Amino acid sequence: MPGNSFGTSFRVTTFGESHGPAVGVIVDGCPPRIAVDAADIQRDLDRRRPGQSAITTQRREPDQVEILSGMHEGLTQGTPIAMLVRNQDNRSGDYEEMRTKFRPSHADYTYKAKYGIRAWQGGGRASARETVGRVAAGAVARKVLASVAAGGPVDIVAWVARVQDIEVTVDPATVTRDAVDANIVRCPDAATAERMIARIDEARKAGDSLGGVVEAVARGVPAGWGEPVFDKLEADLAKAMLSLPAAKGFEIGSGFAGTYLSGSQHNDPFYDGGGRVRTRSNRSGGVQGGITNGEDILIRVAFKPTATILKEQETVDEQGHDTTIKTRGRHDPCVLPRAIPIVEAMMAIVLADHCLRQRGQCGQPPA
Amino acid sequence: MPGNSFGTSFRVTTFGESHGPAVGVIVDGCPPRIAVDAADIQRDLDRRRPGQSAITTQRREPDQVEILSGMHEGLTQGTPIAMLVRNQDNRSGDYEEMRTKFRPSHADYTYKAKYGIRAWQGGGRASARETVGRVAAGAVARKVLASVAAGGPVDIVAWVARVQDIEVTVDPATVTRDAVDANIVRCPDAATAERMIARIDEARKAGDSLGGVVEAVARGVPAGWGEPVFDKLEADLAKAMLSLPAAKGFEIGSGFAGTYLSGSQHNDPFYDGGGRVRTRSNRSGGVQGGITNGEDILIRVAFKPTATILKEQETVDEQGHDTTIKTRGRHDPCVLPRAIPIVEAMMAIVLADHCLRQRGQCGQPPA
Amino acid sequence: MPGNSFGTSFRVTTFGESHGPAVGVIVDGCPPRIAVDAADIQRDLDRRRPGQSAITTQRREPDQVEILSGMHEGLTQGTPIAMLVRNQDNRSGDYEEMRTKFRPSHADYTYKAKYGIRAWQGGGRASARETVGRVAAGAVARKVLASVAAGGPVDIVAWVARVQDIEVTVDPATVTRDAVDANIVRCPDAATAERMIARIDEARKAGDSLGGVVEAVARGVPAGWGEPVFDKLEADLAKAMLSLPAAKGFEIGSGFAGTYLSGSQHNDPFYDGGGRVRTRSNRSGGVQGGITNGEDILIRVAFKPTATILKEQETVDEQGHDTTIKTRGRHDPCVLPRAIPIVEAMMAIVLADHCLRQRGQCGQPPA
Amino acid sequence: MPGNSFGTSFRVTTFGESHGPAVGVIVDGCPPRIAVDAADIQRDLDRRRPGQSAITTQRREPDQVEILSGMHEGLTQGTPIAMLVRNQDNRSGDYEEMRTKFRPSHADYTYKAKYGIRAWQGGGRASARETVGRVAAGAVARKVLASVAAGGPVDIVAWVARVQDIEVTVDPATVTRDAVDANIVRCPDAATAERMIARIDEARKAGDSLGGVVEAVARGVPAGWGEPVFDKLEADLAKAMLSLPAAKGFEIGSGFAGTYLSGSQHNDPFYDGGGRVRTRSNRSGGVQGGITNGEDILIRVAFKPTATILKEQETVDEQGHDTTIKTRGRHDPCVLPRAIPIVEAMMAIVLADHCLRQRGQCGQPPA
Repeated sequence: MPGNSFGTSFRVTTFGESHGPAVGVIVDGCPPRIAVDAADIQRDLDRRRPGQSAITTQRREPDQVEILSGMHEGLTQGTPIAMLVRNQDNRSGDYEEMRTKFRPSHADYTYKAKYGIRAWQGGGRASARETVGRVAAGAVARKVLASVAAGGPVDIVAWVARVQDIEVTVDPATVTRDAVDANIVRCPDAATAERMIARIDEARKAGDSLGGVVEAVARGVPAGWGEPVFDKLEADLAKAMLSLPAAKGFEIGSGFAGTYLSGSQHNDPFYDGGGRVRTRSNRSGGVQGGITNGEDILIRVAFKPTATILKEQETVDEQGHDTTIKTRGRHDPCVLPRAIPIVEAMMAIVLADHCLRQRGQCGQPPA
Repeated sequence: MPGNSFGTSFRVTTFGESHGPAVGVIVDGCPPRIAVDAADIQRDLDRRRPGQSAITTQRREPDQVEILSGMHEGLTQGTPIAMLVRNQDNRSGDYEEMRTKFRPSHADYTYKAKYGIRAWQGGGRASARETVGRVAAGAVARKVLASVAAGGPVDIVAWVARVQDIEVTVDPATVTRDAVDANIVRCPDAATAERMIARIDEARKAGDSLGGVVEAVARGVPAGWGEPVFDKLEADLAKAMLSLPAAKGFEIGSGFAGTYLSGSQHNDPFYDGGGRVRTRSNRSGGVQGGITNGEDILIRVAFKPTATILKEQETVDEQGHDTTIKTRGRHDPCVLPRAIPIVEAMMAIVLADHCLRQRGQCGQPPA
Repeated sequence: MPGNSFGTSFRVTTFGESHGPAVGVIVDGCPPRIAVDAADIQRDLDRRRPGQSAITTQRREPDQVEILSGMHEGLTQGTPIAMLVRNQDNRSGDYEEMRTKFRPSHADYTYKAKYGIRAWQGGGRASARETVGRVAAGAVARKVLASVAAGGPVDIVAWVARVQDIEVTVDPATVTRDAVDANIVRCPDAATAERMIARIDEARKAGDSLGGVVEAVARGVPAGWGEPVFDKLEADLAKAMLSLPAAKGFEIGSGFAGTYLSGSQHNDPFYDGGGRVRTRSNRSGGVQGGITNGEDILIRVAFKPTATILKEQETVDEQGHDTTIKTRGRHDPCVLPRAIPIVEAMMAIVLADHCLRQRGQCGQPPA
Repeated sequence: MPGNSFGTSFRVTTFGESHGPAVGVIVDGCPPRIAVDAADIQRDLDRRRPGQSAITTQRREPDQVEILSGMHEGLTQGTPIAMLVRNQDNRSGDYEEMRTKFRPSHADYTYKAKYGIRAWQGGGRASARETVGRVAAGAVARKVLASVAAGGPVDIVAWVARVQDIEVTVDPATVTRDAVDANIVRCPDAATAERMIARIDEARKAGDSLGGVVEAVARGVPAGWGEPVFDKLEADLAKAMLSLPAAKGFEIGSGFAGTYLSGSQHNDPFYDGGGRVRTRSNRSGGVQGGITNGEDILIRVAFKPTATILKEQETVDEQGHDTTIKTRGRHDPCVLPRAIPIVEAMMAIVLADHCLRQRGQCGQPPA
């Protein structure tokens, strides 16, 4: 199978290069008769749009989505939903130097090694523009979760938890999307957000870049979603997150920190939660043995500092000879603020997929 | 697609419960005419076998593999390779209390929530016995990598890098499997290994358990393997590792630690490595944009402390009523020593898959 | 994806060569809590067993199935069901001449061309023994159809409709499995069956072989199963049937004969069937646009005369030089009687798969 | 997996409804550095375009393809190739009566049964417009076959072999696309073509429709493509063809007719073809045991008479009550002439897929 699709029952296939005519996505397997408002999709796209604030890339893209199929009078038809966004502000001129030189820690060299050819004008499929399709698909996935999932609504929120070493502790049980969107860095703590913004701005002025950590929670997922072996829910989430540009690490629940505890400290005791089984702590992060237990699903994703910086760097040219490169072009000094809607989208896609898989194999789960 | 298969071109499907008649695997898509010695498979299985040392579970399983198909006179035929291992020492009596109670942080409750039925005698598919099939398949994958990969041999080594807070720094460029296997905890530093063993033994005596971190390296992988979008090599590795029992986190290259650096500190400069492009540092961990760059592939996996401990714990019964459980049965006080061959196997499977995918789509990569 | 799996939600993977240690199957994605009696599986295997009558191959195989996983106390667990049948009566000596020569119209040469290696002792995966796994999986699929399908039970019956030019017309609405099994050729009309048996016996004595047509019906399938585009129900049925050894043609409903009619003659008028939409005729064969309409699903499959005959034939050796071959070994002079349970099994697998797919995407279909 | 994708290594996903904004396709897995001229794609699309002659539907669609991704300066990039065709002449007014009534033998009722909702304006995904994406993808597949296949070029030609009972015998070894395109019915025999055209015209005037048989050949395919079990080349071809609108039957090689022969008559003797193994006859149709043997691949596909006719027909309405329908709208009185490029496209897609699969698993086949 080629590598541009994700999911098995709710299946997303993206297409498009950074500097080609368009980017987009096909969502296949979506249940029928779900109300999807194009405005909902647009709202999510607007959250990841470039040029939305002083600390994001200044590339200007309206990113207006066009729904090409699979919808009629506001309802899904059960057929493939194709969505298209035109590229507009792709100034190839900015990339001229990249025609013959590889940007360090970017995918220029590896594309060439793989395909023997590469889209030198802006990263091709490795560009964050590819994630436009993911975000559009994620908006549909949210609707599926709202419509199909038994019990209450599934609610997904991501936020910037750390920029370089500026960190915040957030209560995943209560954090809201409004709080996240209250500032341009998308950290739900105002004071910390200010410090993060200042730090990013500093890096931007220095022609440098920063990384950090995104956290996300999915609330309201019923027990029983996921698979026991290769397609464990946490395995699919890990894949989803590591498939994002610049992602270098993933944790579920207690993650790496939990390995410092003993089993008796780490285990989550069950208790009678009044008609439903609950756990007193949630170091499991909502999954046990690959399957949800009804608690909040908690993940963390590490994003490296953006590879494209404006400082001169050592590199080689297409002939493999030593040279230097000083990239121009418009880039995010820190990908995290715009990664928020993307992480949420991938989480929604994974959950919608497992929701349909569970219904297919097991029907509505037994009480 | 159901969740018991992994890989797309080199495809592995495992079967079997902890307390059923057998566990095993089918490997489909293996290239023909590769010499596979049953003894090689057995050697890997022996590394993950229970009862191999004082710090592993005392369950006694010879784990003799039987090759049922796909091989003839020591050569692969290109047809499915089915491999079978009989379960022998499965004392269901030890599990009697689990018939009506859920073990905390184990998959007992989530299986019940998902399937409405569960294998209460020992964890079913959630048991580490499921990984027998993965290790057998991984041994075949290694042979594929040795046979099909252009350039030199691909060499995969994993080791225990940390148990609780006892940590070691290992040079991934030079560490050998012999050094890893020189002690029962599989940490290539003898002094640290001794401390780890003592700590695990302590936990075992206390009826408690420990977690830690496994590191692994793949050396000799040529540039150009992997996919740019959803099936990034790091995404497939992340999925492979998070699909392992007790895994809670994954890093590639600089991982979470790299997020404290700026882009100018983090980027890996390219240089002319004498006929082949090299990088001066390897914070990328051997992949850029989802595709290998020819440097060592470096990953880290967090394993939580084993959920099954011998202390009394708070839990609920199948009716959801509060109760306590004191598990008996034979369990690993720390899964890490036996996780080593499993991590290596999954890494080999991911690489073999991407090796064949690259050959299929792109042929032998251009010079 | 390698080629030894079939189905997407109910997924079957077979393994095993004719002259290896065993053949078998893994069924993945089976719903949990379905009662499957090993005796049911054995009954279907006994129907395809060699040596069951004077007009089948005299190879003696008890074909006792062993269930290795996925079942507990007679109920499916939702986990992979692995089933194993040992090969016993594989006399490689009979195949000695095939070591260096290709049997005409068999897969000897094409295997060699594909893999550069071949199982010369009896056809390897091309042998009808591979279908043991299909029949075992089909028995599970029937149970799924009985358990999961809304409405009444799904009932699948296949029969031999023609041997060479000896033909019978059967009413698909009423034909029973008992009538089919009433004679060794599995034609539900006793008089025709006798003529078929005599013709096959004649061919057998002449060292020759015969082909013919199998027909099958699935009754009780509700409207709404199938997919509108590539995975049309008839497309998956066609693939299932053409994947059988010796199959050369497939028809659904009116098939080739229907192409002689005009549209006004061919269309199936709808009428009010008392609370459910019915059609007056069934030239559609139960599917319209790839999706079931609630009428009987009717298919026909052409099986060529068995390639292995005992007459001397022109061929080439492994060096490509002209020679002749006179095959020995025990073979069916006509595959059709033993093809009946195999056709039924594949039909059941296709339907079980689409049943679960429909439930996954659309839930229980709207009234 | 949802049902709008086809192929495993060369993977095609179509989208779009007859009366939505657009139809199109994503081709994933295409090898890089293959020259694809947009004009080649357009040429194939023009062959299936509506309104091209007096015997096709008079719907006017220019069907101009736009390539959205995966190509740069005329070369494939190895990334997904998305192609888009806008719908223009979709007069929903013609379909008003279909809003509440089901057309007999069309997919109106089954869509409703499946999805609980349906695109009543023109058939949605069941419309032949869906095949626009297939034809565009097929044009790319041809380029892959020309570029990647070892040995000579692969050459695919389809033709109309029969309309109702007007039949022609064509030599598959020599028939050319030019001969096929020499007349509007696409039958390479001028005299027969004239009779077919007259017959179709007669049906058109009567508001009726006709069916028939398409034959196709693939020449130049090397030995060794295909899979021995479920993904036999003939199985994938059968699925590809039965996935086409109006297809009711499929044959490879001798098909149903071959079942009247004995084995000794039917087998294809091998002989030394001067450095390459050949067969004296080709009743196998170029495949043996699912794998190509280097001879021409010969298939036949039955297409029923178009379901949409202009005569009054008995049917039911959405409430299931008896009524009649008299369809308006513009439809093909016989789908066969326009089916030719579609059959060729699907054949090319199947072969390109198996070409890449063979290279992936087995590398270049051994001499």
